[in-house]
This record gives sequence, structure tokens and C-alpha cells, in this order.
Amino acid sequence: MLYFVGLGLEQSPSLKILKILKECRVTYYESYTSPVTNDKVLSELSSELTGSKIESVKRGFVEDGRIILDAAKNSIVALVCSGDPMVATTHQELRTRALKQGIETKIVHGSSVISAVGGELGLHSYNFGRIVTMTREPMQYTAYNTIFRNLLQGLHTTVLLEWDETTNFFLNPSQAVSSLVEAEKDLRSRIIEENTLVLIASRLGTEESVTGALSLKDVATADFGEPPHVLVIPGKLHFTERETLGAIFGKSPDSFLDNSEGITRLSGIMVTKYSEKTLRALERAKVAAGTETKFQNVFENVECYTRDAQRFLNEGKDELAVLSVGYAEGLLDSLRFAGQLEFDW
Amino acid sequence: MLYFVGLGLEQSPSLKILKILKECRVTYYESYTSPVTNDKVLSELSSELTGSKIESVKRGFVEDGRIILDAAKNSIVALVCSGDPMVATTHQELRTRALKQGIETKIVHGSSVISAVGGELGLHSYNFGRIVTMTREPMQYTAYNTIFRNLLQGLHTTVLLEWDETTNFFLNPSQAVSSLVEAEKDLRSRIIEENTLVLIASRLGTEESVTGALSLKDVATADFGEPPHVLVIPGKLHFTERETLGAIFGKSPDSFLDNSEGITRLSGIMVTKYSEKTLRALERAKVAAGTETKFQNVFENVECYTRDAQRFLNEGKDELAVLSVGYAEGLLDSLRFAGQLEFDW
Repeated sequence: MLYFVGLGLEQSPSLKILKILKECRVTYYESYTSPVTNDKVLSELSSELTGSKIESVKRGFVEDGRIILDAAKNSIVALVCSGDPMVATTHQELRTRALKQGIETKIVHGSSVISAVGGELGLHSYNFGRIVTMTREPMQYTAYNTIFRNLLQGLHTTVLLEWDETTNFFLNPSQAVSSLVEAEKDLRSRIIEENTLVLIASRLGTEESVTGALSLKDVATADFGEPPHVLVIPGKLHFTERETLGAIFGKSPDSFLDNSEGITRLSGIMVTKYSEKTLRALERAKVAAGTETKFQNVFENVECYTRDAQRFLNEGKDELAVLSVGYAEGLLDSLRFAGQLEFDW
Repeated sequence: MLYFVGLGLEQSPSLKILKILKECRVTYYESYTSPVTNDKVLSELSSELTGSKIESVKRGFVEDGRIILDAAKNSIVALVCSGDPMVATTHQELRTRALKQGIETKIVHGSSVISAVGGELGLHSYNFGRIVTMTREPMQYTAYNTIFRNLLQGLHTTVLLEWDETTNFFLNPSQAVSSLVEAEKDLRSRIIEENTLVLIASRLGTEESVTGALSLKDVATADFGEPPHVLVIPGKLHFTERETLGAIFGKSPDSFLDNSEGITRLSGIMVTKYSEKTLRALERAKVAAGTETKFQNVFENVECYTRDAQRFLNEGKDELAVLSVGYAEGLLDSLRFAGQLEFDW
């Protein structure tokens, strides 16, 4: 039997966990998924409370996994970590191997930054989109595009930051933000700007837990202290989210920028651009037509479909909006292609 | 001082929580956010371990909140619940009111279905999109559209199910699935079909925790036992996710359907439909034109832009694809509006 046990962000064992560890022949405690110091944790898990042998192990030991699996074949064994045990891919892999070898597995879930960060910052969990992790590598396009796609839907993005136990490296918020600024230069969706609202939670679940709400330009110079940190790039803020942010940070609820405002869908940009272009060309076509009335029907349809495009866009029917503006443009342009009228676009 | 304390899915207090409750003058335990029976929990929180007075309270008491806030003004008070304390909106609201009244608040996070369900089912947390809650109300369009938008990005959707303490009502998986089938009839994005893969986790975190992987049509007749249940409609499955699903459910990794396969973006449907329509009309227009060559330029452009639309679509440039097909249609239709050619669409 192999237990995967999460101590949560607080890294404090529950009565249920202590009971489980009492049954275990050996408990492996891994520290590589969190940079929080673990001496106190180890003492709480120690033999006095559990009677179990606690062995501190590193990433390589868990990745190799053979010793753990061998032990779990004939006895009760636990792998203990901070947070939720199944968020880490190495633990998922070990579980899969255990199941394939016919070893029974049980999971004791723990609180995780994934579910905790929203509540800590006063944001609703159903307003979050896909999560993303940033690393120290250059060109963090995945993070940028994830934030962009979430913002298009008005959703918040949780940005986890790389932690490497072997080199004791933790990507700090300032580095993460500069990476996003670099990506903005290349991808230009105008989502990462000086005033973009960035929320930060540092050392979540510990006694030194601190949260912050800053403009992006202020993140660069701020010191957030010891890791871990997690960023949230909020999207559209519900008024109750504004209320809570205001109460947490002692500011007016209206002072928090809506990062999703002004983020234009490509279809919106296209409809505006091609509508204006088509209506300008229409005026010139009318001048070229002079008193000739046989194009009246075409002209009216061009106006009508351009208007429709704007209406569809306002209704959120983006595809229909783009189709309509394309159609209007085609109607008008055909007169030139067929040699009926000469006018400039 | 007001503590918000989450006991997690396991509903077992940690050593840290017991220490906090020892300091509290009064501990309010609320049971309305989870249907799991709580007698054991109450006994674990009881005075023997904590020396604190435990008061069981209902939703109305927390929503009103005045007694809690008054107590927290002059003494240390805890509001204890299952799961994570800040996922529930009523707790967020109470915290906001406390902060506004100058009462210090602290959060002890607990494991939550939101972060736990993915790991329990072998799915990666960064492959989840927006979460959604389904209620017993008819026309669950929000849930349907959330699943659809997530599937378009290949993402998994966690579907939480309504739980109403006052009437002891919990939406069961079969009811949820029938609601989605109803929504499919109206919205027709072809995401909810007989073979759609549905994952279910029941009583997560308890001793009676069970997971299942079923075709949608089998959910209707299956009995999942006591609540709570949570559904996951998976999107694109990473091969390691398939491996784990296979190991958990004793099936071949390839036997799990990719729900995101064949989910067509509306732009794709539109480009195909309008391209075919335009090319058919073009053939008729050519017949109507007979030997007249002055429309040659228009005809060539119609073909060219229809081809472009397909190419843009293949390149993922959906908006340009729709614009092109609309433009091609307009070019051709203009000939009719200007009285140049008569042909049917």
C-alpha cells in the first residue's frame, strides 16, 4: 500500500495523516516541490507522534521510485509532501507505476496554491482560466498567450513560478514580469503594460504570508522577500471581487484596473478597420456613379451589411460580424472587378 | 481576530488548526458547504483537544454574520468549514465585512475539490480550463458553453454540482448529464454526445471515495451512491494522462475518447458552409454569363478568395478565413444586386 500524503500549504499534518503514518513501516518526506523550510515539519512528523520512520528524500529518489515501490509491495508506505500530492507530475508518474504493479494507492489531498490563491486575494474560483507556470527560459510565449486567451474571456490567470531545489533557484516576480514585457514586445496584444494590475501572494500558508496588488511597473523594483511567490493577472473584476480587494489592500474598490478592458478580439479590430474602409470607399463609389441609379441596390446592401457587422459584434457574434463586413466589402469591390465603376479604396 | 479555517476534503484538523482553536474563545463550525456527515469532525474539534467551545451553525447565521463579527472584535474567533474556507462566496463576504470593520483576519487553507479532482483522476492541473457549477435549473447554457470553450482549447472542465443544505438536495451526475444533453439540443456544438467521456469522483477525500470513467450514455443509468460528486469533462488527453487513466481504471490508455477531437470552431463550420454555397452559385453564374468575358475578373477573385479562406482556416487564422469567404460571397452576389447577371444561390 502506497499513500500519497499532502501536508497542504500550511505543512501541518492532520489527525488523519498522523493516524496513517502510525500504520506505515516507512514514511518518505520529499522537500523538492516547495522551498519552505521544513525542520518544524519533520519534527511534527517524527516518531513521537507517529512511531513511523521518516526519511527525507530528493527528486531523484522519487523519480527513480524503485525503493519506494519495492517497500510498498509488502508493507504500508507513505510519500509525504507539501501542498497537494497529486499536483506534481513525478508523484502522478509514481502512482501510475504503482497501480501497474498492482500496488494499492491512496491519496490524502492537501491545500494547494491552485485553489488557495484565489480566495486569499478575494477572487472567485470560477473566474479563473487556465493556469500557467513560468520558467527562467527566455521567450515565455506560452505564459503570455495563456494570459491573453484568459483575458479575452475576462478570466484571471494564476502564474506559478519555477522552483529548482537542486540549485535553490526560485523565479522571482520581477524576473517573471520582465519576461512578460519581453513577450509583449514580440506578440503585441497589449496585455502587458505599465499599468497592468498584478496581484502577488508570497509564502502562502505560512506565518509570513503576504499579499500585494501593484502596477506592473512597480513589480520590477519591489522586494517580496523569501519565496515561494505566486502571481495572479486578474481579468474582469466582479464588483464583490473589487470590494474584497479594496478591503484587503485598504484602497477604493474602483482603483483596481480591469486588465481585460481594451483587450480587443481580433474580430473586433477587423470589423472596425474594414467597416471604416468600406464606408469610405462607398462614398467615393457614389461620387463615381453620379446620377446612375442601377448601383443603388448594391450601395444599400453595403451600408446594411456594414451596420449588421457592428451589431453582431456588439452581440458577441464575432464570426457573423466578420462574415458580414467581408461580404459588404466584396459587394462593393465587385463593381470595380466587373469594370462597372472606377473608384479608389 | 477572525480565523477562516478549512478542514479540507478529509475534514480532519491539522496540528496547526488544533493549536489555533485552542486560542479561540468560540469556534463556529458550518456544515452547509458540504454534504458529508460531520459527527466525527465535531468530536475531533471538541473541547478535549482544543478547549474551545464549538458551535454548529447554518448558512443564515454566516450570511447574517453579526454575531461572528461582534465576537471577533474583542476576542479570537474561528469559522471552521470543510474544504477551503475561501471558495465559498459567503465566507469571502464575511471576510470583507470583517476587514472593513478593522477586524484582523487569517486564513487556514484546506484541500479543495478544485485542486484535488484533477490529481485524483490522473489529469494535469494546467490542462484545466474554467470551472463551472451546474444547478437543477433548466437550460444550463453556462455550463454547456464553458465546456465548449474549454474543449475548443483542448482543456478539461471541472463541473461542480449544486448542493442545497436546507432541502438536502444534491444534483446527481445523471441529472447533470441530462441537462447537458438538453442544452446540446438547443446549442448544437456537438460536444455532448452518447460517447462523450465523463469522469466522476464521488465522496472525494472520504473513506468511501470512488472514481469512474464512463461514456455519457452510461452515466444516466449508473448509481454513484451518496454525494458529493464532481464531474470532469476531459479535453485533449496528454499521453501521461492516458497512462494514468488506464492504470486507475484498468483499461487500455487508448480506450479513452478525446472529447476535443472533432469539436469544430464556428468559423470552421461557416467557412465550409459558405465556401460550398459560393462555389455552387459561381458555377450557375458562369452558365448565366455564357460567352460574356467581362465578369472573368470577378469569377477568378471569387475562386481565389474561397481558396484563401480554406488555407487561412488550416493555418488557424479563423478571422481572416471568415472575412475571405464573406468577401468572395459579396463579390459574386454584387453581380445580381447590380442587375448584371441573374442566377440562383
